[in-house]
Amino acid sequence: MARAVASVATDDSDAASGFVLDEGFERFSQVDDVFSRSSWDERIRSEKSAKFYATYRRPLANWKSAPGFQQRDYAFRNAAWHVTDLIAAFDGESRNRDGFLDPLSALQDGPDERIQIGTPADAAKEIKHIAKAVGADLVGITAFDERWVYTERFDPGAEGPRPNPLPEGLEHCIMIGQAMDPDLIQTAPSALAGASTGLGYSHDVVVLLTLAQYIKNLGYEAVASMNDTALAIPLAIKAGLGEYGKHGLLITPEFGPSLRLGKIFTDMPLAHDKPIDFGVKQMCNMCNACSKACPSKAIPDNEPNNRLHNRSNISGITKWSIDGEKCFGYWSKINSDCSVCIRACPYTRDYRSRRNRVWLRLSKRLPKLALRLDRREGGGERKAAVEWWPVEIKPRE
Amino acid sequence: MARAVASVATDDSDAASGFVLDEGFERFSQVDDVFSRSSWDERIRSEKSAKFYATYRRPLANWKSAPGFQQRDYAFRNAAWHVTDLIAAFDGESRNRDGFLDPLSALQDGPDERIQIGTPADAAKEIKHIAKAVGADLVGITAFDERWVYTERFDPGAEGPRPNPLPEGLEHCIMIGQAMDPDLIQTAPSALAGASTGLGYSHDVVVLLTLAQYIKNLGYEAVASMNDTALAIPLAIKAGLGEYGKHGLLITPEFGPSLRLGKIFTDMPLAHDKPIDFGVKQMCNMCNACSKACPSKAIPDNEPNNRLHNRSNISGITKWSIDGEKCFGYWSKINSDCSVCIRACPYTRDYRSRRNRVWLRLSKRLPKLALRLDRREGGGERKAAVEWWPVEIKPRE
Repeated sequence: MARAVASVATDDSDAASGFVLDEGFERFSQVDDVFSRSSWDERIRSEKSAKFYATYRRPLANWKSAPGFQQRDYAFRNAAWHVTDLIAAFDGESRNRDGFLDPLSALQDGPDERIQIGTPADAAKEIKHIAKAVGADLVGITAFDERWVYTERFDPGAEGPRPNPLPEGLEHCIMIGQAMDPDLIQTAPSALAGASTGLGYSHDVVVLLTLAQYIKNLGYEAVASMNDTALAIPLAIKAGLGEYGKHGLLITPEFGPSLRLGKIFTDMPLAHDKPIDFGVKQMCNMCNACSKACPSKAIPDNEPNNRLHNRSNISGITKWSIDGEKCFGYWSKINSDCSVCIRACPYTRDYRSRRNRVWLRLSKRLPKLALRLDRREGGGERKAAVEWWPVEIKPRE
Repeated sequence: MARAVASVATDDSDAASGFVLDEGFERFSQVDDVFSRSSWDERIRSEKSAKFYATYRRPLANWKSAPGFQQRDYAFRNAAWHVTDLIAAFDGESRNRDGFLDPLSALQDGPDERIQIGTPADAAKEIKHIAKAVGADLVGITAFDERWVYTERFDPGAEGPRPNPLPEGLEHCIMIGQAMDPDLIQTAPSALAGASTGLGYSHDVVVLLTLAQYIKNLGYEAVASMNDTALAIPLAIKAGLGEYGKHGLLITPEFGPSLRLGKIFTDMPLAHDKPIDFGVKQMCNMCNACSKACPSKAIPDNEPNNRLHNRSNISGITKWSIDGEKCFGYWSKINSDCSVCIRACPYTRDYRSRRNRVWLRLSKRLPKLALRLDRREGGGERKAAVEWWPVEIKPRE
């Protein structure tokens, strides 16, 4: 059953998470998502966009000779997506796209009776413990917030809207973050870097299915979601996973913007986390690395505002916004997802290194100095794909 | 097409891997596996064994009150298996059991043309690099060895044998090791510890499908396998992943015996690894921790020999052997897989700790001392399940 229309009013945690909604706010329809539009909107749809998708099912027959776009790069990228595609029934036959247009359906019903799991704080502690054991890199919990739920899903068969039903009473949302491979990302833009996206999703899908099945096995409801059903970033910010960046991505203290998100809506009573502040706003205000690096000029170097580039932006919210048409246009051109903004971002670092953890602390207190250090160290520079591969192979003539 | 009968002759690497085959050697049929026998053999099949399997699909309705066997323990264990069960089509409808009785079938065909990947040494280097990026904890490569391929698969519908075909020319075998959660294992025997088995498989299945799809995307053949098709341990030993232990498990320097195995048969030309020796034989000869701890007395404290406990043992090979009937009988009794021998083994340690890495080096040079230290430190002792859970919950009355 579809939920009633959301109220526009902001709530207490909006301020802390930096969202400024105005009267012009409208919930987003997934029909207006740039990926959906590449099916139905002539402004986006093209031979190139069709070829872009086709290469995920079957690599190009005529390989490019550019490093990072050769046969083994596509072979690896597509293999990295394979488990996600299996679960998504991404076979071109089904009209469902679990995890992209529809929630993950591969879950079993639980028992009728609900187990008692103590206070909401106890239950939250337990859910986080399980999530980590299952392989989640990050986990946070926030309240269900209808404002970020899509008004409609996109039906790829009808090339139009379809309902986006969610069971009543799912008042809590568990946000999951799955790190993307930092070495692969350094080669962006490349088909090779696209493997980090596919692997991120494939691990995400396992964590989400396992954790959601656990909740169902306790007798509660759980709807597991990746890019479907609702916008992930506002919920992730409210769940304390990170802050919003100029490139329109979530930036976390653990992986910068180099991660995939997942979410589970549930009626299991869970205590909520609070938004965090580790200095991203001031850093993004003075840094324009992503904007400068973006090959399609899709990321303006400006202040947060409520202007819209096109219908793929959300109305009535003051924030940094990117031009999805330009962004996806570049993906179509190179036959792979881009990720250059992730590679260029000074927060994209391997924080297992002590040096990088020190940099993160510095970035909050002395962002200008941190930025200068990052650039001096060659932060964000593209690594050659051939450096990632252990063996060099000459492309076919 | 089924392969011809194997020759019995040992090859050069047998000596290094410690296999001693005699004229009595016979390839193993999966029909004689104790899990298969629990379907057709009255010596194993019972109400208890049926209930054992049933609890994996749906937890017991009447919870036990014993810690580690309560509702959330089963809820987690079964959730941990969920992705594996999905891929295995473990729904009771299909007669296939991908990963247990049949190879993983969820793979797409690759292109007709094969990419050149340099010398076999180059290709092996690349495959290992990809395996690690995909999430494999261990990877090694060995030659296909028909002696360890099952003569028959088990057909659960017909409760009898069916052919075990493998394409011709898969001369190489990539062995994958997936670590099991060391904290969960410490609570064995418990349904909770069973979650580490399920999670190990669920991560294994993602790695195997992704890596096999990569190989197929390069134009080569790849058959991805977990417990189906062939015995994993002899192949893993020859691929240099570890040594054979008294409890009948592979012992690795990275995770001890606390891991799941997977394998990919392929025709991609790959250089092979060599067996390793880090002192397991002498340690197992003087240690009887697993034998002493085994609740079902299934692990004799003896020298390697070629005696058979029952038809679930392999004929004609001198090695340590356990009594699978006793072992599985205990699993049926407790409604979960046991893992006590893994928990009790002195090699089961978290080798991320420097102290434990020092212990490993000591265990090769001074095994007696290492063993004494292990016992003094309380190595192998069971941890209470309630210690694993962050919050204590009283079982239902």
